[in-house]
Amino acid sequence: MPPDYSPAQLAERVVGGKTPAIARAISWAESVDPRFPELLRLLYPRTGHARVIGLTGAPGAGKSTMTGALARLARADGKRVGIVAVDPSSPFSGGAILGDRIRMQELYTDPGVLIRSMATRGHLGGLSRATADAVDVLDAAGFDEVLVETVGVGQDEVEVIRLAESSVVVLTPGMGDDIQAIKAGLMEVADVFVVNKADRDGADRVVTEVLQMLELGEHGPWVPPVLKSVARLGTGVPELRAELERHRQFLLGPEGEGRRRSRVRRRIESIVRERLLAELSALSGTDGSLDAHVAAVEGRTEDPMAAAEALLSALRSGGRKE
Amino acid sequence: MPPDYSPAQLAERVVGGKTPAIARAISWAESVDPRFPELLRLLYPRTGHARVIGLTGAPGAGKSTMTGALARLARADGKRVGIVAVDPSSPFSGGAILGDRIRMQELYTDPGVLIRSMATRGHLGGLSRATADAVDVLDAAGFDEVLVETVGVGQDEVEVIRLAESSVVVLTPGMGDDIQAIKAGLMEVADVFVVNKADRDGADRVVTEVLQMLELGEHGPWVPPVLKSVARLGTGVPELRAELERHRQFLLGPEGEGRRRSRVRRRIESIVRERLLAELSALSGTDGSLDAHVAAVEGRTEDPMAAAEALLSALRSGGRKE
Repeated sequence: MPPDYSPAQLAERVVGGKTPAIARAISWAESVDPRFPELLRLLYPRTGHARVIGLTGAPGAGKSTMTGALARLARADGKRVGIVAVDPSSPFSGGAILGDRIRMQELYTDPGVLIRSMATRGHLGGLSRATADAVDVLDAAGFDEVLVETVGVGQDEVEVIRLAESSVVVLTPGMGDDIQAIKAGLMEVADVFVVNKADRDGADRVVTEVLQMLELGEHGPWVPPVLKSVARLGTGVPELRAELERHRQFLLGPEGEGRRRSRVRRRIESIVRERLLAELSALSGTDGSLDAHVAAVEGRTEDPMAAAEALLSALRSGGRKE
Repeated sequence: MPPDYSPAQLAERVVGGKTPAIARAISWAESVDPRFPELLRLLYPRTGHARVIGLTGAPGAGKSTMTGALARLARADGKRVGIVAVDPSSPFSGGAILGDRIRMQELYTDPGVLIRSMATRGHLGGLSRATADAVDVLDAAGFDEVLVETVGVGQDEVEVIRLAESSVVVLTPGMGDDIQAIKAGLMEVADVFVVNKADRDGADRVVTEVLQMLELGEHGPWVPPVLKSVARLGTGVPELRAELERHRQFLLGPEGEGRRRSRVRRRIESIVRERLLAELSALSGTDGSLDAHVAAVEGRTEDPMAAAEALLSALRSGGRKE
């Protein structure tokens, strides 16, 4: 592919399902290429078809194996599947042990599957924006299902998972303290819980703990089911897919509308946030005003909030930048 | 304490080391109270005395136990110690098992120790800002050392730990895949690595892995030492304290100046970011323009980037808000 495709040319090829074009479009999204807004404008009317499912959990919980297993079931149903890995330790990101990669090999060679990993570094707030854009590219390219895998700790990752229509939280036996972290961070984003590696001791205890958590916590009309699985063997994966289908049906109701709306809102906010941050760092490069404030705050002749206030004024007068 | 202290009155009491005043000042920081900027302006010239140390690691690594052990050593040296827990699963946040809390009890009853946990929810980008403000309050109140404990996964948490002068990454044997996550997220923020629970099998392997990581990775003139500890028994904690002192000495050199400057820069940026986000959500409440764009994007008559662009213009014309 020549390096000088216009947004219109690239959009045409993305919609035509050309893999190199899709890869390049996602790279534009990731690198905040100035041509990406125009590309998105052209692609966006073609989106809204794909089913977007998020999978999250601690490293080692088996998210990638589960993602692979779900992808295989979707393929067996004749669906085209996109996989977006937002996790540096995922085998889809090339970060895992050889055995995992071998297990995934059939997915890599299947033309109905497109796998893409997102760089998790160098974004601040921009990770969820870039991931959402990647999902839109895949959606416009005609993929029926998009599976987004993310390591689920930290607010950035929670933001990523909130972009999905349905979110799966993958747990394992023997997590202990992690349940606390999940309580705090992922409770309200989980649509389905899966206790993976359920052939290990303690799986039932984790199920019980999650059920207790759900009883104590608040949830709307949708009560997240708690399943058991051994993703490595495929056990429990059809049941997970069935629950995800049940959740999809649920989202067709009035509850789903609110969620769709809040996903769009978060999406817009994430773009605004990233743009503002980019302008803020540009300020430092151009007139050095950030540097001057840094020196003043370091010398304690100015406090950090006063410095921020001055920079906000500069940002506001900065006007529009492309 | 009456509910209507002015910033000047509260500042005086914070500088006087009054615990309820310190607690209230931190609450003002957390809740973005409109009086906090004035309070910070008054307190900021009194800061710069405290030594700020960050501790991070996965849930269950023993960060809190290590934090408690470091606090005890500092107390034995006659130092006043502030502990800021940015981790919902920390016993300092009340989120842990009874045994932990009992082990921490002496710290709670020691008048030379002030423990404060920060809510990790409801901030987006504001967590590091609020934590930095809390550290300043403790600094102005005359605490000699401030220990910041955070669960170290996710960019928000990494931002928190970057605020510290010196950062300790706490690892444990049997982490396996977690090493990958650490590679990706915490490598360049770690000043000291500690393999805690070193009485378990596999501690030496973790030490070797980290040393290999350090050999492959980039680091400046400071090479992070890799220690072993059993924080529960106090083993290895004096050695950690000695390394932290060595790092403090290192920071007095030219390298330290760059780090101080970059801490201040991040601090200012985090305030700007939070302010802009607050204004963005206010936009939705006032003229409903965010809602209108959400509906247009949902209906696919507008794409998310065009909506963000329109909102950015509205933000810029919004002018200064207090």
